[in-house]
Amino acid sequence: MADITITTFDWVPNVPRGYVRDIRLRWALEEVGLPYRVESTPFKDRGDEHFENQPFGQVPWLTHGDISIFESGADLLYLAETSGKLLPADPKGRSEVIMWLFAGLNSVEMAVLPFTIFKFSGDEEETPGRQALDGFLSARLGHVEAYLSGRNWLCDDFSIADIIMSDVLRLADRFDALSNYPNCRSYVERAVSRPAFKKAYQDQLDHFAKAD
Amino acid sequence: MADITITTFDWVPNVPRGYVRDIRLRWALEEVGLPYRVESTPFKDRGDEHFENQPFGQVPWLTHGDISIFESGADLLYLAETSGKLLPADPKGRSEVIMWLFAGLNSVEMAVLPFTIFKFSGDEEETPGRQALDGFLSARLGHVEAYLSGRNWLCDDFSIADIIMSDVLRLADRFDALSNYPNCRSYVERAVSRPAFKKAYQDQLDHFAKAD
Repeated sequence: MADITITTFDWVPNVPRGYVRDIRLRWALEEVGLPYRVESTPFKDRGDEHFENQPFGQVPWLTHGDISIFESGADLLYLAETSGKLLPADPKGRSEVIMWLFAGLNSVEMAVLPFTIFKFSGDEEETPGRQALDGFLSARLGHVEAYLSGRNWLCDDFSIADIIMSDVLRLADRFDALSNYPNCRSYVERAVSRPAFKKAYQDQLDHFAKAD
Repeated sequence: MADITITTFDWVPNVPRGYVRDIRLRWALEEVGLPYRVESTPFKDRGDEHFENQPFGQVPWLTHGDISIFESGADLLYLAETSGKLLPADPKGRSEVIMWLFAGLNSVEMAVLPFTIFKFSGDEEETPGRQALDGFLSARLGHVEAYLSGRNWLCDDFSIADIIMSDVLRLADRFDALSNYPNCRSYVERAVSRPAFKKAYQDQLDHFAKAD
């Protein structure tokens, strides 16, 4: 079968560099040791081919033979199943990792992402909705903080769920949202000190720098 | 193996009734025809046992033998794999449904949920962040609208991805956010006209009404 290919933008502005979601796929691929290639799609002019592969006009997507998958969570699940790594084989262990994979995205990123939209807008106005949104984020972070107490990783071993959760928390940390959550912060530090993350991060920076 | 059990709240206020996420599990279980029981956990006093099963203090969670899974996306994937229904067996078809399962949650609910937080707060102030958030929602809905053109369901057949996506869009529709998206609205109408949805919906209403 053909190599796995990640498609990401050819270029992005400086602000998202190091945070574009192709880093999740690069990281997982470095962890599992599968060969892969990285291809580019235009950032500034997103054409039909882009939307055929990623109907929301985002990146990344993964292709492998006749399979094309967008959504970083689906991509990581595919890579884990293809490699037999970062996801336990036994039904109970497998279900726990998949549960935390969804939780990183749907319980935590769902709170972090709107928070970052306001931060990137420079909007600090304390309207009632904004207070509710900030309360939503702090509640979610508080629950992750409690869960991480005494744990190195979300499940028994480092897994695809940790790639998602630590990357999501990393984005919160960028705006200093983890200052009251030491377990979350040390969890992120543990994750980003892995050689596979460091390589993925540098490769993403290099990829976008090439197009400057 | 023991029956599948869904745990949801014993009671909720009127506003979320018909929208509590146990409806996604009830709906899937009615579609696939697996036997199941529904148990309750206190809404007003969420204790240690609740957080052990659902570390964010939300509902539902699913138990089956020694397996306990929260996150509706993970629950639906488990139910599809357990029943062999609502998820194709071939690798390409399977990957497409899983991709759209994540997309409903992470590309669409991620935009709908913060929008509903502002709506439930009665907050209509047009701050820069709020405008960015509303733009995020309308972009995502616009992409779903384009994708649904000429399609009955997200993939070839009705799947777990449609349960998630239509339930997410249903919440947006509640605040009239679909008025400019006729494909989305007719997709929701098609989904909620299924007998399995109708039963799940009525069962949820009945469950909470019992505790009034």
